[in-house]
Amino acid sequence: MYTNREWVLAKRPAGEPSMDCFELEETETAALTAGELLVQTWYLSVDPYMRGRMSDSESYAEPWAVGEPLNGGIVGEVVEAESDAYDTGDLVTGEGTWAEYSVMDAADVTAVDPSVAAPEAYLGVLGMPGRTAYFGLLEVGDPSPGETVVVSGAAGAVGSVVGQIAKLNGCRVVGFAGTDEKTTWLTEELGFDAAINYKSTDEYQAALADAAPGGVDVYFDNVGGPITDAVFTQLNLDARVAVCGQIAHYNDETVPTGPRKLPQLIAPRATVQGLLVGDFANRFGVATEQLSEWVASGDLSHRETIVEGLSNAPDAFLGLFSGDNIGKQVVQVTTET
Amino acid sequence: MYTNREWVLAKRPAGEPSMDCFELEETETAALTAGELLVQTWYLSVDPYMRGRMSDSESYAEPWAVGEPLNGGIVGEVVEAESDAYDTGDLVTGEGTWAEYSVMDAADVTAVDPSVAAPEAYLGVLGMPGRTAYFGLLEVGDPSPGETVVVSGAAGAVGSVVGQIAKLNGCRVVGFAGTDEKTTWLTEELGFDAAINYKSTDEYQAALADAAPGGVDVYFDNVGGPITDAVFTQLNLDARVAVCGQIAHYNDETVPTGPRKLPQLIAPRATVQGLLVGDFANRFGVATEQLSEWVASGDLSHRETIVEGLSNAPDAFLGLFSGDNIGKQVVQVTTET
Repeated sequence: MYTNREWVLAKRPAGEPSMDCFELEETETAALTAGELLVQTWYLSVDPYMRGRMSDSESYAEPWAVGEPLNGGIVGEVVEAESDAYDTGDLVTGEGTWAEYSVMDAADVTAVDPSVAAPEAYLGVLGMPGRTAYFGLLEVGDPSPGETVVVSGAAGAVGSVVGQIAKLNGCRVVGFAGTDEKTTWLTEELGFDAAINYKSTDEYQAALADAAPGGVDVYFDNVGGPITDAVFTQLNLDARVAVCGQIAHYNDETVPTGPRKLPQLIAPRATVQGLLVGDFANRFGVATEQLSEWVASGDLSHRETIVEGLSNAPDAFLGLFSGDNIGKQVVQVTTET
Repeated sequence: MYTNREWVLAKRPAGEPSMDCFELEETETAALTAGELLVQTWYLSVDPYMRGRMSDSESYAEPWAVGEPLNGGIVGEVVEAESDAYDTGDLVTGEGTWAEYSVMDAADVTAVDPSVAAPEAYLGVLGMPGRTAYFGLLEVGDPSPGETVVVSGAAGAVGSVVGQIAKLNGCRVVGFAGTDEKTTWLTEELGFDAAINYKSTDEYQAALADAAPGGVDVYFDNVGGPITDAVFTQLNLDARVAVCGQIAHYNDETVPTGPRKLPQLIAPRATVQGLLVGDFANRFGVATEQLSEWVASGDLSHRETIVEGLSNAPDAFLGLFSGDNIGKQVVQVTTET
């Protein structure tokens, strides 16, 4: 039994979440039952979709309960095992809690191989965001060589992988991101053909027309809002829009207004489709294998923004909405007892 | 050579078209060259998509030229033939002009069989609107038995066919239309399970929840605007939205604003797709054959709203935007010389 600290949902936010929505509680770890592992958190994942879990409205991810621990992806070390599948000292990843320790079913975790990539990469390029990029782009976006792929939130955990997979598929790739550091990373390090800093211009449509003079064949949308409005004006015949996220809207208290976009779909016979990575669960293994190969070969770069200390987890989460992260945002959990 | 009267585009409209956009000119029919027919118009078609042709912006239908005759679907009688394919007296349909006489290529027309349906039906259920309904519903909407299909503009030329084909496919069908006469026609004559008069309530979302308590699997959209906003709130898992038309927006002078809808696509993994019937041109024959069978068997009802007189063609066209028509709007062209 260990003393544990874990974040619980103190209250639901209205609009933008604030720090008082989170409360750090001290507890003790539960005794394990058969098949369970006690995992000490090395890294925990904060993801934009978690904003939906803070609300009680029905959605694809089960809402977090007020007063209960916040769950999400973690990477950690097995410190107790009531399972033959893992030994103490093994590194695993799976759904844990924003805590120092998580009790996890051995059947629900997968092994982390630090020879492929640093453990924290298993929350990003080799985790849910990487798989989202892989299936979202290849299955929903379905790009062909020579096509133009535009990505919003391009320097984020998902977008940065989307753009690189599109390049590996022979596409022209344009990303929207919010700082010059990010756009430089995209074009200099990740091989994007062009990147637009949407905070340095209001003329998204003109900027996109410059960056994608042949129009847009695939749009992988993580953001929504005015960036998406601009992209919709430049969809090519048979364009595909994969709606992966809409981070610009997650803190909206009411349904926002914007240009009505459906008329713009008719002439190009464009397709807009919402996507959830969970729909591809039976093929996660294939994706992880391919992503691991690309990472190992150097074809796929990845980057993590690491905030240190469990106490800073809410800050790291809230920072997603102001674009503090480059690549995958993770929290390194140090045991501060 | 015949004296002809034909409507030309006098000027392009800004916003809602007015009568002075149209001008009726007297001309003489041209001499035929090999392969051509001179066709005397019995009925001409006015269609919402023609609003796009009045503007000079690039779109899927070639803009009408200022000062030039307005073209569109017609049904008429061959009065001169420089082709062995048709004789004088034959009834044909194809792309003609808003005129008493049209010169048409014999290769581009098809025969009208009045034993299947009245000639004017070849501009509706057995013409482009019927084919649009057929392919748009079955290929883009792709409904399965037991699913709920919602249609906007349900009492129009396309929508009324969509709903009936959905019923023939074992679906629950809900239509939006703008008068009690229309909604009664839909439920009493066409077999719709429910119909909502959108001009008698502002509570579209509540009305739809009543009419489609199991949510919406397929939405065939001819209209856009607030009706579509309401439908988007109630999309089921894997819902398909076929964007066929957006008549509520064709007269907009600027891009209108409305609720941003993309966030609503993620949880249901819904698909929204623009459609143009021309993409299915290589299968038009199959569609017309099936539609003719259904009409002949009585499985598919159709109705035409007939305005008499070539001089009233612009009125009939403008009436589409106020919902004057039930079923297909056509103009019966009498030779008023």
